Amino acid sequence: MNSTWSIVESSFDRATAKAYEGLFTLGSERLHVRGSFEEHLADAPQDRASGGGDAPPAKVKWGTFVPGIFGTHPSLRRQIVNLPFFLELALNVQGERLDMGRSHISEYCRTLDLRRAVLTRTLVWHTRAGALVRLRFERFVSAARPALCLQRLFLSANRAVTVTVRGGIDARVTSNNHDMFERVTLARHAANGIDCVVRTNRGDTIAMRTVFAAPAVPWQVEHDERCTRLRTALRLRPGAEVALEKRTAVCTSRDRAPSTVARVLADAARMAGDGLLAEHTAAWERRWRRADVVIEGDPRAQRALRVNLYHLLRALPRGDDRVAICAKGYAGELYQGLFFWDTEMFMLPFYLYTDPDSARALTDFRIQALPGAQRVAAQYKYAGARYPWTSDDQGDECCGPWVFKDHQVHVTADVVYGLVHYARATNTPCYLRGAAAQVLLETARYWLSRIDRRVGDPRPHLLGVMGPDEFTPMTSNNSYTNRLVAFALTAAAAVGRAAGAPPAECRAFARTAAALPMPRAKDGTLVLQCEEFEGLAAANVKALWKNRRIMFCWQVPQERMFRSQCTKQADVLMLMALFPHEFTAKEMLRAWNYYLPLTTHDSSLSFGTHCSIAAWLGLEAQAYEFWRRSAELDLNVKKGNAEEGIHIAAAGNTWQATIFGFAGVLSAMQSDILTITPHLPQRWKRLAFPLVWHGTPVLVDITHASVAVTNTGTAALAANICGTRATIAPAHCVRVPR
Amino acid sequence: MNSTWSIVESSFDRATAKAYEGLFTLGSERLHVRGSFEEHLADAPQDRASGGGDAPPAKVKWGTFVPGIFGTHPSLRRQIVNLPFFLELALNVQGERLDMGRSHISEYCRTLDLRRAVLTRTLVWHTRAGALVRLRFERFVSAARPALCLQRLFLSANRAVTVTVRGGIDARVTSNNHDMFERVTLARHAANGIDCVVRTNRGDTIAMRTVFAAPAVPWQVEHDERCTRLRTALRLRPGAEVALEKRTAVCTSRDRAPSTVARVLADAARMAGDGLLAEHTAAWERRWRRADVVIEGDPRAQRALRVNLYHLLRALPRGDDRVAICAKGYAGELYQGLFFWDTEMFMLPFYLYTDPDSARALTDFRIQALPGAQRVAAQYKYAGARYPWTSDDQGDECCGPWVFKDHQVHVTADVVYGLVHYARATNTPCYLRGAAAQVLLETARYWLSRIDRRVGDPRPHLLGVMGPDEFTPMTSNNSYTNRLVAFALTAAAAVGRAAGAPPAECRAFARTAAALPMPRAKDGTLVLQCEEFEGLAAANVKALWKNRRIMFCWQVPQERMFRSQCTKQADVLMLMALFPHEFTAKEMLRAWNYYLPLTTHDSSLSFGTHCSIAAWLGLEAQAYEFWRRSAELDLNVKKGNAEEGIHIAAAGNTWQATIFGFAGVLSAMQSDILTITPHLPQRWKRLAFPLVWHGTPVLVDITHASVAVTNTGTAALAANICGTRATIAPAHCVRVPR
Repeated sequence: MNSTWSIVESSFDRATAKAYEGLFTLGSERLHVRGSFEEHLADAPQDRASGGGDAPPAKVKWGTFVPGIFGTHPSLRRQIVNLPFFLELALNVQGERLDMGRSHISEYCRTLDLRRAVLTRTLVWHTRAGALVRLRFERFVSAARPALCLQRLFLSANRAVTVTVRGGIDARVTSNNHDMFERVTLARHAANGIDCVVRTNRGDTIAMRTVFAAPAVPWQVEHDERCTRLRTALRLRPGAEVALEKRTAVCTSRDRAPSTVARVLADAARMAGDGLLAEHTAAWERRWRRADVVIEGDPRAQRALRVNLYHLLRALPRGDDRVAICAKGYAGELYQGLFFWDTEMFMLPFYLYTDPDSARALTDFRIQALPGAQRVAAQYKYAGARYPWTSDDQGDECCGPWVFKDHQVHVTADVVYGLVHYARATNTPCYLRGAAAQVLLETARYWLSRIDRRVGDPRPHLLGVMGPDEFTPMTSNNSYTNRLVAFALTAAAAVGRAAGAPPAECRAFARTAAALPMPRAKDGTLVLQCEEFEGLAAANVKALWKNRRIMFCWQVPQERMFRSQCTKQADVLMLMALFPHEFTAKEMLRAWNYYLPLTTHDSSLSFGTHCSIAAWLGLEAQAYEFWRRSAELDLNVKKGNAEEGIHIAAAGNTWQATIFGFAGVLSAMQSDILTITPHLPQRWKRLAFPLVWHGTPVLVDITHASVAVTNTGTAALAANICGTRATIAPAHCVRVPR
Repeated sequence: MNSTWSIVESSFDRATAKAYEGLFTLGSERLHVRGSFEEHLADAPQDRASGGGDAPPAKVKWGTFVPGIFGTHPSLRRQIVNLPFFLELALNVQGERLDMGRSHISEYCRTLDLRRAVLTRTLVWHTRAGALVRLRFERFVSAARPALCLQRLFLSANRAVTVTVRGGIDARVTSNNHDMFERVTLARHAANGIDCVVRTNRGDTIAMRTVFAAPAVPWQVEHDERCTRLRTALRLRPGAEVALEKRTAVCTSRDRAPSTVARVLADAARMAGDGLLAEHTAAWERRWRRADVVIEGDPRAQRALRVNLYHLLRALPRGDDRVAICAKGYAGELYQGLFFWDTEMFMLPFYLYTDPDSARALTDFRIQALPGAQRVAAQYKYAGARYPWTSDDQGDECCGPWVFKDHQVHVTADVVYGLVHYARATNTPCYLRGAAAQVLLETARYWLSRIDRRVGDPRPHLLGVMGPDEFTPMTSNNSYTNRLVAFALTAAAAVGRAAGAPPAECRAFARTAAALPMPRAKDGTLVLQCEEFEGLAAANVKALWKNRRIMFCWQVPQERMFRSQCTKQADVLMLMALFPHEFTAKEMLRAWNYYLPLTTHDSSLSFGTHCSIAAWLGLEAQAYEFWRRSAELDLNVKKGNAEEGIHIAAAGNTWQATIFGFAGVLSAMQSDILTITPHLPQRWKRLAFPLVWHGTPVLVDITHASVAVTNTGTAALAANICGTRATIAPAHCVRVPR
């Protein structure tokens, strides 16, 4: 297998088990499962998430998630529900249980095939009784049948041996340490199956059915209140491989096209496992054709990028506008499975430019959540709509700490930016005049009621604001926020009259947008993060950050951080990454030199943005280093970065750093025609990727010699390639030397 | 009874029951009991404090507190322990239970005699069976025997009737909704008593014994795990009064002079109830002689002031430097029974100038808590000692919300101000060279490590600070804080060398003190609360504060408050109240006019300070109104202000407003000699009070015609009365016409 298309775990290590479990998450738009071992791991309790109280964090943690299945959590309000674990295939030979941490194992290899989205594990089990049992586990969540998960196990042995196999559904799971189930029903189904139906404390019903296929063996049932499994004995003869197959269907009461587990399994039953695998891989091949980015000359980067793209392709809830993508990409329980600005600002571009039809579900999600945003505004006694910092599917605020919930208001403008981005990238301005218009108007009304005035000063201000930098909690006129709010107000003014807003209101939107200040230092060149920034305490970030292996914020008391010139992530640079055409190169470089020494990158959202800015500034080495830190974040299993799930926004930002940064593509927010001015790292020989621009698919192929753009669509496309204007006819390629 | 010496509840009302319960708290330095009915009130659960979760707040709440008996609370860390309720005397006639809310009652009158600290209740109970039973309950916690509580009940009836009396000790109590007891032992003691021993979850043991005396009746025991009582039947004959007496002793493992409940009761047994009452009232007479403030011409004000003084006299933990006075004056569980800056800045002056020997325990408390302050500093990674915002007896930080705990740093300077105030008021400069010196040095070291620098600015700054105004959470160079810190650093520099600090360190203390800025507006006259203040959002406090009966902060979202020009309490004015000689009358008036419209007085600490400033500015009407709001705060039973305890710091501030404000006495922090320049309200004909100045007791007598000072001590005293210098010989009076 091509190593740039896979993640390989070549030996088992307890210390990295949980990180691989996150990294090996499989999923469809309807169902995600963490890469847990089929037979579980000894001494790894499943009743806690990341170590509640004094308990040590679990070594591994099952995770079975259906987007949109949220429960009510006693302390966290809303929490994605960790559903019953259905992957179990536990093996026993002569009283010895297979366990990766305890058994004598050789030839261990676990591989996630990124191209096909199939997870396999091969190993030889040296049983205490002396047999060598060769095992191959295989599993995938079908891209063709998103409610179906298929598992296969291939067994052989060097001598005759009986293997007891147990497999079932285990509802002894918690979601962030809380049992979310009001009711659990477990029962045997027919001779070879198990049914599990759970009802969550929010009233959703989830049905699971798992069935075993071939060989024709008798199954015994083992049943208890929260876990039911079937058991059989397989007789292995030397040299003969035995295959066992397990198919699980998961249907829920919130499915838009209601089906039943019976129907899903009956439909699938018409195909053998290989056939199901073939249609699954075919679907993934289609996905990759739209999205794969080829990097030549740097296989490590190539593989890292594909890991990011794999999870982006996996996590998208295609066709369901009632959910977005949660902060951990449906690969863990952290951040409660809820939705942040991550969606609009970090993930959306990848989908917009590779699969715009599917991307629309993400922007539509915010439109359908408008009533929630109106509730939030009313709770704060403002007019209009204020999107929550941490949103559940209903658009209600689920953030606990007030300092983020109250002050990180830019999310409301980010949402509008996302809607406009959709309209511009797809060249469908009518999108903003439809249901989206109410979002534009209602959020603009919020801003007008949120605007502050100062005594003796007629200008509008936004005070008490936290920008992207979460180390500076309550600031005045955060530049990022003010610019985004001005953008949102301008967008509202533009659609306002057509959407029924009074002319005076639209004028107020436009007037406020024009008047919102962007603070600058006395030299006029340095854009200030906020008015206060120069007056914050001088901080020697290097000296304070004694142990670089631990995040800055964990070793510097919050009260010091909050008053000091240290920055968690790109803030002014994030603004410049979104509106590069509004700043001179001198201003960008000044900001880079000023903020970089103060920035700790405690947020995974920081690296990709820094990569793009560095690439544009021609700081290739730094750009490459930031790209690497962004792209390889979750691959760092030693640090355990993927333990609680995937940094899916960072994955989206990695794509942006690659396409907007290194390939130098201007986003549709910056240019009306496709514009490419590459900043290719020297070690990359070639960077090639598909893109959809205003509905027209193209292939971009960048080398150090030239940039080629092939129009694979049906309409001619205007482009600006390295400063050369061209119109590319369908099925034609334009190559511009660099 | 003179109505200026009592609080009278003339009819029972459920709505005000809890407020009276707080207001009627009795106590000695060793034991405090809320004014709960002996027979309890139906439907008033005792298992919650102020309505945990969705539960409605309890109608009444028992409270039995021993200063220093703290427990560990699962969410609040440290919490004063609500000890078992020992006041019970429940009455029953022919199956009918006496209950103030249900029984047919006439001639109800409950009175707290402030002068004698005795609570009585008289009533006639019209039993359903037709008898009229006249009852008089009486109780006091002995000032002469602080571990003893005596209760008496006098019964008579219009016809022969049998009254069943039950009385015992009930350990079914919680402290802020949590059971603090590791062990509860209840047993009958001899024929007529009950023993209760509880062990708290922090390891303290509290022993209680309650015994009944006379008449000679047989007692039956009713026992369950958490509550044991004795029962007897009293036969009443028409016209003959029966008296029942109950004595309870409370001893704890933390008592400095260990005694036993047996010893306490045996000692008391030598005296009849009347004798015990006589020695108790004699002790209170002595207290009042030192502290009573006479106001002639305004009986309402006279009474209100005495209510404040009563609770100040009650709450002082005389002779025990291991505790201070908790925020609710040992009359409730709110604020967890913990210690704030209230002690130094609001309560201490009353004790310093009326009972300096006892006051010393309060300043010594902070000295013995120095190790706790050093722990807090270390937790925040600072040098030296940082006093906690919310201190337990060990000096550890027990505040939950980080915004107060982290940022309200002025408490550390307030503590030093308190120590210096003790030394100056008592004219014992050596106090600061003793154990107190380490507090001065260690807190100064904290300040040096807490000082911030700004890029390109050599001056020291204190950033990220919350001043007294808790509506402006993280400010730069809060004037109050900076001035207090400069004061503390100067004090440290003065004692530094003698206490072993290196000369260079002392110079750094002095240099920093001199350089700390005090921000002012451009006009130079307006002292700014902090650098940011003029840039905060303009707030129309009047318009935002729609319902004046509800606190401002409950109807304006915190996020708006935090960025707006609204102020919870005196901040710059508090600074000016402490250092009036450092500001011109013009500056004080400017600050008054600027801040007053922005101030919501959501804190009870605000009124007294505003009264003093207004009095000094000659704004008599406003001064009087603020005085009234301060003095009558807890008397407002309709608003329920005393429900969760006494605003004891406001009580201290009421005294300051009276003495420093209206009487115009300069504190020893402002003048070395006794200086009096009255601002007597017109309606007050006379204001007379005792004072101890530099160890010499005096009587001050102010009328609109003259100010007379009588030296009741043994040394001559220099004074400045209305600008006239005089030396007052012992036993002489100097009268200066106004």
